[in-house]
Amino acid sequence: MSQFDNVSVVKQANVYFDGKCVSHTVVFADGSKKSVGVIFPSQLVFNTRAPEIMEINGGVCKVRRAGESGWKTYQAGEQFSVPGNSSFEIETLETLDYVCHFG
Amino acid sequence: MSQFDNVSVVKQANVYFDGKCVSHTVVFADGSKKSVGVIFPSQLVFNTRAPEIMEINGGVCKVRRAGESGWKTYQAGEQFSVPGNSSFEIETLETLDYVCHFG
Repeated sequence: MSQFDNVSVVKQANVYFDGKCVSHTVVFADGSKKSVGVIFPSQLVFNTRAPEIMEINGGVCKVRRAGESGWKTYQAGEQFSVPGNSSFEIETLETLDYVCHFG
Repeated sequence: MSQFDNVSVVKQANVYFDGKCVSHTVVFADGSKKSVGVIFPSQLVFNTRAPEIMEINGGVCKVRRAGESGWKTYQAGEQFSVPGNSSFEIETLETLDYVCHFG
């Protein structure tokens, strides 16, 4: 599915880490939210409040979740999950296009 | 109005000029499209196919439309229009958050 239908989109973008990460918030009829975005080549640390599932549409990244020693590589068509109230390190090797599913 | 309701959102971002401009496409029930996006501080030239109206949510830019000699400055709450099959130069002074209305 290349698009989300019957949703609302918040006009104002979310810009993090001086533009290394840009996303837009998508609100679903049930009130749940997702974000669609990109992460440019960089090494970043994201904190989570709700649990997250990062669905990769394009690009390549390496991820290390809090408390884990190893890095795992993910690419288009794959996804990774992160518990809530946690964090993950991400090294983007090729510009990442993603959907972040919250909750 | 801070969001668009009852729309579709294309998951994959539009990334132009090596990431200086990032947007997402929003599709309306009548089939018309808009994009929501950001332009980071830079000097760029955009070509238009359909006429465009650039609605500024945040930031500051200077714009010179094709065939015009003068630059005009626009900021949050303002908008500018560009004919179809034309172009405009834009110098973004502060990261621009915009909605582009096509047609």
